[in-house]
Amino acid sequence: MTATTDQPTLGSTTSDFAGLSPRPSDDDPAFALHRGGKININATAPLNSREDLSLAYTPGVARVCTAIAGTPALADDYTWRSNTVAVVTDGTAVLGLGDIGPAASLPVMEGKAALFKRFGGVDAVPLALACTDVEEIVDTVARLAPSFGGINLEDISAPRCFAIERLLQDRVDIPVFHDDQHGTAIVALAALENAAKLTGRTLGDLRAVVSGAGAAGAAVARILLAAGIGDIAVGDSRGILYAGRDNLTPSKAALAAETNRAGLAGSITDALAGADVFLGLSAGQVPEEAVATMAPEAIIFAMANPDPEIDPAVAHKYARIVATGRSDYPNQINNVLAFPGIFRGALDVRASRVTEGMKLAAARALAAVIADELAEDLIIPSVFDDRVAPAVAAATAAAARADGVARR
Amino acid sequence: MTATTDQPTLGSTTSDFAGLSPRPSDDDPAFALHRGGKININATAPLNSREDLSLAYTPGVARVCTAIAGTPALADDYTWRSNTVAVVTDGTAVLGLGDIGPAASLPVMEGKAALFKRFGGVDAVPLALACTDVEEIVDTVARLAPSFGGINLEDISAPRCFAIERLLQDRVDIPVFHDDQHGTAIVALAALENAAKLTGRTLGDLRAVVSGAGAAGAAVARILLAAGIGDIAVGDSRGILYAGRDNLTPSKAALAAETNRAGLAGSITDALAGADVFLGLSAGQVPEEAVATMAPEAIIFAMANPDPEIDPAVAHKYARIVATGRSDYPNQINNVLAFPGIFRGALDVRASRVTEGMKLAAARALAAVIADELAEDLIIPSVFDDRVAPAVAAATAAAARADGVARR
Repeated sequence: MTATTDQPTLGSTTSDFAGLSPRPSDDDPAFALHRGGKININATAPLNSREDLSLAYTPGVARVCTAIAGTPALADDYTWRSNTVAVVTDGTAVLGLGDIGPAASLPVMEGKAALFKRFGGVDAVPLALACTDVEEIVDTVARLAPSFGGINLEDISAPRCFAIERLLQDRVDIPVFHDDQHGTAIVALAALENAAKLTGRTLGDLRAVVSGAGAAGAAVARILLAAGIGDIAVGDSRGILYAGRDNLTPSKAALAAETNRAGLAGSITDALAGADVFLGLSAGQVPEEAVATMAPEAIIFAMANPDPEIDPAVAHKYARIVATGRSDYPNQINNVLAFPGIFRGALDVRASRVTEGMKLAAARALAAVIADELAEDLIIPSVFDDRVAPAVAAATAAAARADGVARR
Repeated sequence: MTATTDQPTLGSTTSDFAGLSPRPSDDDPAFALHRGGKININATAPLNSREDLSLAYTPGVARVCTAIAGTPALADDYTWRSNTVAVVTDGTAVLGLGDIGPAASLPVMEGKAALFKRFGGVDAVPLALACTDVEEIVDTVARLAPSFGGINLEDISAPRCFAIERLLQDRVDIPVFHDDQHGTAIVALAALENAAKLTGRTLGDLRAVVSGAGAAGAAVARILLAAGIGDIAVGDSRGILYAGRDNLTPSKAALAAETNRAGLAGSITDALAGADVFLGLSAGQVPEEAVATMAPEAIIFAMANPDPEIDPAVAHKYARIVATGRSDYPNQINNVLAFPGIFRGALDVRASRVTEGMKLAAARALAAVIADELAEDLIIPSVFDDRVAPAVAAATAAAARADGVARR
């Protein structure tokens, strides 16, 4: 998901929700639509005669199995594996709802699977795990790897998500991609590149402030640094991260060391004075007085859902370009612009991982889709722009080859 | 699978197959059919407008998630879970091929998934695991349980398969069913009940010999005992199991204690003298001289694939009724007659496990489908008889309710 709360609380149990939860109602179209789920599996081979069965199952299947036993990579040609991704969560950071557990996370994972197919032609299997320990999650998913062409990690809380992604990628030879981090980062970078271009600047001209030091905030900061942002400061609920700040977690200390070249301290609102860009990934509200102190031609991406950190009407009073995570405003920063094409491209070339180069290439391809149409209310394509996934896929695949991680 | 070798050798690696494996050829229709796999996933919810996305994904999905967080069982109503089964293997006992590893097992698991949908309307996900340790397999699958309505274990070698099924069922509240054991046993029981009926006998009148003390042999022996067979002796490569035989594994010692009331010793061919029934689940060939010693009106189920333990032409010289595991002879003992209906019925009532009563009820319902059509070449329905799965499902569901394991 694009925006989650910063560092969702761990340790809550599903029973905490018992008194707060809505009752299902078929008068609510969301419940009506969800009845029975949103995806299914179909046989693509005919199974209507003994001859059919003898090819799709025994004895014919044994010849295919034996060939794969000799050359395991043939499973990519003769099974659905090379088009299939596991969408894996532990239910600890679901949307803005936090730690709601694996069962309650399933509708989001199914939705993700539906989007994977609709926009990327990728078969995706929702897997919500009944464990939250880093090592257990890594072991579990690594053992499943022979069945899949890629792993999309989803809605796993920070900082565990960082270690899980890194340790798992070290164990398997298929791409591991935590969408809450990198999907958000790729789409935000694409939008910011277009916003800079539209306002006659480059990323190197911009000083940015990120609100939120969780999964998404850290990944956005890092991809913008890799893309050459002038400077970027990241804040959490206790203010801007800087080297030496008290009580930093290891992941925040690492982020502090990589960001904030200017050495800012103080609150996020302090940091906004004179800043060119605000990137909201925390749901923490920003007061209008602080927005008013931003530099001319400011760019505001208030991505929290459903309540942006800065009301778009307020943002427009002070900023030239405004984007949100919502579908009912222009310039929606939505991960669905990235993950279907990224995995489509990675699967097409049987990539072994998703490199930084692939992420940057995906962002640039996404931005370029609307290169000739840029406007203040069009800095990122619509999710229904059918040029997006093919462009992202082609760029991702080309970068995988360039980076030497493609197997064909 | 219906017939596997008895106790496949563990510890071989896929590289053992490198020199022996066929090269894929699109001239072979089995390879042509398998290209790209045999199943896919589709979105069943519309995703063509912002309105669609707002219901299937954010923000609408959050209401469904929150409801499930309060009442986790609602995931059965509002996700695909209650219609979805994991088909889990470790690749150690695949068809008659043995320990070919997880990647090479995938075509069989996909075929199973295709059959689940075609015959039972069940969504099934192939999961081939990169681990063979009992505890690791149990841990892995238990952690996946929130995503599924049932677990079909497949092609896991004996004796590990017995412990895995038992320990896993103790950990999860969804049905765990090792098809190589119980699917085979249910179909064999149905066929034998019809064969007995056709020859004017009951199961209690029959003395049976089982060749094969692996997963299928043990399960067939046990279900026939539960159904009231007169006596049954089970043999492995060293002869008939009896209490006190040297060097019995724990699982074979248990089987010896439950079977062979007559206290037979010696070889399987020795035991066939005067026996009414031969059940072959081992691929070990039986000499014609031994077949000739069976009782009048003998019943022979030579289920090994592709080479029955007794050639059907030879068997017919001495037996009144002959069945095999092959589709090109009459009376095919094929698991596809059982597992789609069993899981259909278990899922329909959200059963927490598959009881012995459910297995017996499924077998009797399967036998009853052709009660008015019985003939020597029709003791078990065709796999394409569209009465089978509904009948098996209804009986399984009713037995689940009777046994108190149904949740609706």
